[in-house]
Amino acid sequence: MSSPKPTSARSDGGGVPAAVVNRLSMYLRELRHLLADGNQTISSSQLGQRLGFTDAQVRKDLAHFGQFGHPGIGYRCEELVDIIRRILGTDRQWNVCLVGVGNLGQALLGYKGFASQGFKIVAAFDADAAKHGQTYEGVLVYPAEALADEIQRQQIELGIIAVPAQAAQAAADRLVAAGVSGILNFAPVTVSVPPGVSKVGVDLARELEQVTFTVVSRLRAAAES
Amino acid sequence: MSSPKPTSARSDGGGVPAAVVNRLSMYLRELRHLLADGNQTISSSQLGQRLGFTDAQVRKDLAHFGQFGHPGIGYRCEELVDIIRRILGTDRQWNVCLVGVGNLGQALLGYKGFASQGFKIVAAFDADAAKHGQTYEGVLVYPAEALADEIQRQQIELGIIAVPAQAAQAAADRLVAAGVSGILNFAPVTVSVPPGVSKVGVDLARELEQVTFTVVSRLRAAAES
Repeated sequence: MSSPKPTSARSDGGGVPAAVVNRLSMYLRELRHLLADGNQTISSSQLGQRLGFTDAQVRKDLAHFGQFGHPGIGYRCEELVDIIRRILGTDRQWNVCLVGVGNLGQALLGYKGFASQGFKIVAAFDADAAKHGQTYEGVLVYPAEALADEIQRQQIELGIIAVPAQAAQAAADRLVAAGVSGILNFAPVTVSVPPGVSKVGVDLARELEQVTFTVVSRLRAAAES
Repeated sequence: MSSPKPTSARSDGGGVPAAVVNRLSMYLRELRHLLADGNQTISSSQLGQRLGFTDAQVRKDLAHFGQFGHPGIGYRCEELVDIIRRILGTDRQWNVCLVGVGNLGQALLGYKGFASQGFKIVAAFDADAAKHGQTYEGVLVYPAEALADEIQRQQIELGIIAVPAQAAQAAADRLVAAGVSGILNFAPVTVSVPPGVSKVGVDLARELEQVTFTVVSRLRAAAES
């Protein structure tokens, strides 16, 4: 059975807003829960309702990539899971390496959410010689100097940076020189990468600012009404 | 000197897209770097350029909240920092508690980016009795049963959840019952909170999916051209 193909986006993600991609990830998780609960199909309004979005939002997000609904049926859960995974690029496994095995790095090595989405951390790197040759959560720690060789040998395509701020750009440069396609940066600083490399920065305080923004917006609205 | 006041947003964040709020956080950090480097003013195109956005994007994002530019000058960096902090609600300190002191929790306690943005973790809670009474990064760990009392006593308004998936909803329920205004959830599962409480979920795999999305979009575009 062939399912509808997603249309491809442009080189930078096709001008598709990051928020849309973020919601695709949320739809994917919800659809998996639905499948696990034995549901075969779902309407855009049901899917939206479960996540707090309107049905129009769901349809508009998916329309960036094609027409996937079936008249009188809605979405077939399994089909839509396949489609979204193909859009996100997680319809296959990605080999990932971690740079920095401090508290955060160790937390990331133990994070169950990566493997379940197709991300396999296959190597870790740290400047601390005491950690070299040790394994954390089954992942071997190498010296930073071994990075290029291991990336080549294990066909690692993505790198996660979990080093202190002052070491982040050097880690990014090393990953880029070794040929990774994308970087997820947890250091609380912006790193520069060349145009051909994808980069997302995770700033944990920024996430908290999203929380306080809605808290103060609510308080201001209450004060005015 | 009185600076322009941001207009208030609606109760849920005013229909202001999360991506806009996210970019405000990025503008804030960049403006602080500019100030540290001795810059007094900046144009929207300069600010955008430093972050990879167009000047139109910068102006449109800020226009959600008011008119802050000065003809012939651009933005006054210090003024815009004050305005964005007021919009985000970080023009004051927030007392924060952490639920779950495992690897991730300990990494969050050591994360320097929170304090610098006005977030002070003042208490931590864990189910493990061996951790009670211990301090991590200067923060005392209490039993989960002490949560409501400590939240009241220390006027804690925000809670960070860093417990395993199966314990996340119970942690959220406890925080809500104790009266927090907002929750940042790191557990790889969606938690439900009542309408009056703000919630942001951090799904670390979702961040990696943003990376792979742009990687595969670039590959598809290259294959087609």
